[in-house]
Formats: sequence, C-alpha cells, structure tokens
Amino acid sequence: MIYYLDIVGTFAFAVSGTLAAADRKMDIFGALFLAAVTAIGGGTVRDLLLDAHPIVWTVDYNYLWVITLAVIFTILFQKWVFRLRKTLFFFDTVGIGVFTIIGLEKALSYDVFFGAAVILGIFSAVLGGIIRDTLCGESPLIFKKEIYATPCLLGGLLYASMRHYGIENPYLTYISVLFIMSIRFLAVRYHLALPQLSNEGLEKNEHSGKKSSDN
Amino acid sequence: MIYYLDIVGTFAFAVSGTLAAADRKMDIFGALFLAAVTAIGGGTVRDLLLDAHPIVWTVDYNYLWVITLAVIFTILFQKWVFRLRKTLFFFDTVGIGVFTIIGLEKALSYDVFFGAAVILGIFSAVLGGIIRDTLCGESPLIFKKEIYATPCLLGGLLYASMRHYGIENPYLTYISVLFIMSIRFLAVRYHLALPQLSNEGLEKNEHSGKKSSDN
Amino acid sequence: MIYYLDIVGTFAFAVSGTLAAADRKMDIFGALFLAAVTAIGGGTVRDLLLDAHPIVWTVDYNYLWVITLAVIFTILFQKWVFRLRKTLFFFDTVGIGVFTIIGLEKALSYDVFFGAAVILGIFSAVLGGIIRDTLCGESPLIFKKEIYATPCLLGGLLYASMRHYGIENPYLTYISVLFIMSIRFLAVRYHLALPQLSNEGLEKNEHSGKKSSDN
Repeated sequence: MIYYLDIVGTFAFAVSGTLAAADRKMDIFGALFLAAVTAIGGGTVRDLLLDAHPIVWTVDYNYLWVITLAVIFTILFQKWVFRLRKTLFFFDTVGIGVFTIIGLEKALSYDVFFGAAVILGIFSAVLGGIIRDTLCGESPLIFKKEIYATPCLLGGLLYASMRHYGIENPYLTYISVLFIMSIRFLAVRYHLALPQLSNEGLEKNEHSGKKSSDN
Repeated sequence: MIYYLDIVGTFAFAVSGTLAAADRKMDIFGALFLAAVTAIGGGTVRDLLLDAHPIVWTVDYNYLWVITLAVIFTILFQKWVFRLRKTLFFFDTVGIGVFTIIGLEKALSYDVFFGAAVILGIFSAVLGGIIRDTLCGESPLIFKKEIYATPCLLGGLLYASMRHYGIENPYLTYISVLFIMSIRFLAVRYHLALPQLSNEGLEKNEHSGKKSSDN
Repeated sequence: MIYYLDIVGTFAFAVSGTLAAADRKMDIFGALFLAAVTAIGGGTVRDLLLDAHPIVWTVDYNYLWVITLAVIFTILFQKWVFRLRKTLFFFDTVGIGVFTIIGLEKALSYDVFFGAAVILGIFSAVLGGIIRDTLCGESPLIFKKEIYATPCLLGGLLYASMRHYGIENPYLTYISVLFIMSIRFLAVRYHLALPQLSNEGLEKNEHSGKKSSDN
C-alpha cells in the first residue's frame, strides 16, 4: 500500500518537474532530467547520506518507468494538466506525506539519532524540488514560503511522540502521513506562512497571500 | 587504449570548464574548480550512486594532473585555444563517447538493471557540464539543445543490442564509442535538435539553428 | 580542543548562511537549511567522497544544535550581529583553518594520495559556501576573490612538508591551522587577490580592492 502511494507521489513530483521544464522551454531531455531529479533526487541524497545501497531506482524498474510516463503524459495532455491542477496538488501532497514518513522510517533503520532521521525524512520530500529549482537557475521557492517543509517537520515530531507512547505500525505510518497532508491542506487553504527574515529582522511573509502553481 | 581516450576527454572537458570560468572573469581558483567539476564531476556522481569506492581521482594522480595542465594550457594559449575550437570539439566528442560507454560498463559491473546503467553512462558524460553551468548561476545549456545527451542514449541502446547478439569486447566498446561520436557530429553538422517544450505544447527547437562554443 | 574549534567554526559558518538567507528575504526554514548547508555541507561531501560513514552530524547531536542556535541567535540579534562583524570574521577564519586541517587529516586516514587529501581538506572549508551561493541562485563569490581557498592550499602544503620533516601532532595540526588563519588575515588586510581570467587573458583582480561582508 505504502509502495503504491510512493509511486503516486513519484508521478506527481515528475509532473511538477516537467511543468518547470516547459516553463523554461527546455527540450525533452531537459524535461526527463528535471522530472527525474524532482521525483527521486531527495530520496537519492537521503540514501547516499545513509550509505543505503543500492539506490532504489537503480534496481527497481518502476520508478524510472513512472517518471517517463509522467513526462509523456504531461507533454501530451499539457493543457489538460493545467486544469487538473487540483488533482495534481492532491497527489503532490500525498507524495510529501509519504516521502517524509518513508524517509524517516528508513533513516531510523540505520543508526542515526531521531533529529537527524526527521531531517532526512524532510530531505526526501523537499530536496528534489530544491535541486530542480537550482538547476533552473532560480533560488528555491520553498525557501520563501512555508507550506512545504513545516508540515513535514510537524509530522516527524508527531511520529516521534506516537512511537514514544507505543503506537505501532501500520497506524503510526498512516496517521503521520495523513497528519502531514492535513496540515499542508490547511496551510494552503488559509495562506499560512512562516515569518520571513530580512535585513530589518523578522517580518510577515509577503509570499503568504500568493498561491503558486508549481512547487 | 580506452584509458588514454578517457584522459583525452578529461583534458577537453577541463578546457571547456576553464573557458566558462574565463567568460565569467573568475580567478585561478575558480578556473581550477570549474575545470575539475566539468571533467570529473559526472564520473564522481556515478561512482557515489554505485557505491564504487575509492573515487578514481582520489587514488589515481593522472586525472588531477591533466586537469591542472588543461587549466594552465588554456590560460597560456587562450587566444590560440579559440582558434583550436574544431580540435577541441573533436576531443570533447571523444570524451562524450568514451565517458558514456566507460560509465555504462562500470555500472553494469555492479548489480543495476540495464536502463539504470544507460542512465549512469549518460550521467558520466553530461553531469559535469550540468554542475558547471549551475555553479555559473545558469540554467544548463544541455537542457535546451539536443546534441549532447541524445547520442549518448542511442549509443547506450546500440551497446545493449550488440551485447544481446553476442558481440564481445573490445569491439562492443569501440563500435559504441564511434557510434556516439558519429551521431553527435551529424547532429551538429545538420543542426538537429530535440523538440522543445513550452506552455503551448511541443514546438520546434529554436536553439537548433544556433551553434554554441561551450558545452 | 580541536573539536571545540570545529564547533566554533560551525557556528560562524551557520551565521553566514543565515545572513545570506536574510539578504534574500527567505523564511525560517530557508534560513535553517542554508545555515546547515553552509556549516556542514563541505564536510558532508568530503565524507561521501571518502565513503566515511556514518556522516558525523547524523550521529553527533552537537552540530545540528549549534546550527539551530546560530540561526536563532542571528535572528534575535541581527543588528547586533552586523556590529559583531569583526568577531564573526575571526570565528569564520578559525573555521576555515580548522575545517581544512581536520578534513585533510581525515582524508589521509583513508587511502587517498596526498594531493587529493589537500583538495578534500579545501573542500571541507569552501564547499559549504559554494553550495550556499548556488542555492541562492548566484555564482559563488569564492570563484572571484582569492582570500578563501589559497590560504587553505598553502596550509595544506605546509602540513605536508612539516610531516615530511617528522613534526608530529598536535604541533603539526595547530601550526597549520594558525598558518592558514595568518595568511587569510594578511590577504584581507592587504587586499591580495589571485589574478583573474578573462577572454583577453589573465588580468589584475578587480575584486581585490573590495571588501565583502559575507563569504
């Protein structure tokens, strides 16, 4: 079950990579590369940091197939994809929740302390998008609006406390994933954002009122 | 023999890194760093992903010497280097062919499936340039014009089918390398390019008619 | 003792990451991410290249705590931090010296040749800043001004010759660190810079007369 949700998230992330490539008039190779980096970049960096070899996508065909399909799908139905924005946002949110908790659990199965495992979980969810934006020559959007990393952090902390109180899998996993998804939906719905730094000190986030289509 | 071609490719890639540094008025440290990243960045990422330690350039002196020589050579004979553009393009194309097939063969010697090995071969050839462009604060050129990754992909597929039909080394290696080089020469000669994505759908690649000196 | 200097350097690097985030009006997550990348990015890449697992910050709480403290400290006392510039510059220089020599010694404890160990030492000191600038969508400052990597290189060479002549630890370590710090202070004091490349050939570094607050 979690594996299929992982694949759904991979698809959604790959679509967002392809849309970023289209925005910048890249060619098909650029789209494939950007889709792959967005979808599997975070997990790959996590596995390198954990020394968790082999890297999943080098031994499991499905990830690369799903990414290729997502690129073809996005190119063929591009205008339709824009109308599907809400569906994609839902899939994307599934991806964030699942990637965070899968990443956290994988990290815990190695000998890292809990705080580092939460960070590696967040990395799994957000690093692909950060690399994508950097490759596009842009400062990552995620550094300016909160609705992405904060739910992952809160979900990781919830996971920690539930585990502490003896709640076992699979409840532990599913509740945490749903919690991350809910926080993100609420944050987007009510335009919540973290305070922003500036050279004058902390201030209200000027991005918080805006919606952004890709992330 | 393949080792010497690898060194030739490393030299050509390091020259292209140095020229990129000169374009941006970097200092000598920047030039060395950019030359090294361009020349050995792709292979290094491939080895990290394969968990293939030790990383070659940390135990074989030659790579770092060749890169240092390439930087000195480019600085001393900079105007001459521009006139040598055709020779460099030839060396660069040797590099792409050799890096792809060496990378592919190295990946196959680990337990990855064939599609992932082809991707890791392409990475060996193109990732150095992608990191170089990103460090220069630019969206990688290779995402907009095809003449770089597509020949590597086709060469990888040819390698696969020849191997399937029982063709053995060293023919397998050399034929694939020559094939990649030929496709690239043809693509540059006839200004071939992959179709480009845009927010309106696929369109003819507007970069295809232009020649670019660095890649 | 060296461990505490390492922590001091981590703090200084994290402050510089937070200031870069404030310059670009990032939010608190962006600040934490950028602070962490600046402070531990270089050492992390070094460890990945050396296959030196586990990565230190995943098993030693102190690094992540120091980084979090540095971010909070910088946000709370931001105006004060600007006035502390000289103190921070001192800490930063401690960091560069310590990171280079710790990195060099760690690399030597693996089977890499000396030149590669010096490079990995320099990486430990400079790569965090390079990744930080790239994530900010800028070409790294360090590629344009010398006062950063050159002292690390000279310190590494001094370390090599002292070791060759039989000078042992801890003198070897401390003398090299102090040497790097001294060279950097002198370079900044007298606006020394490496010659700059351009499309016309080498020229005097136009950045050498300017001081920059972040690096």
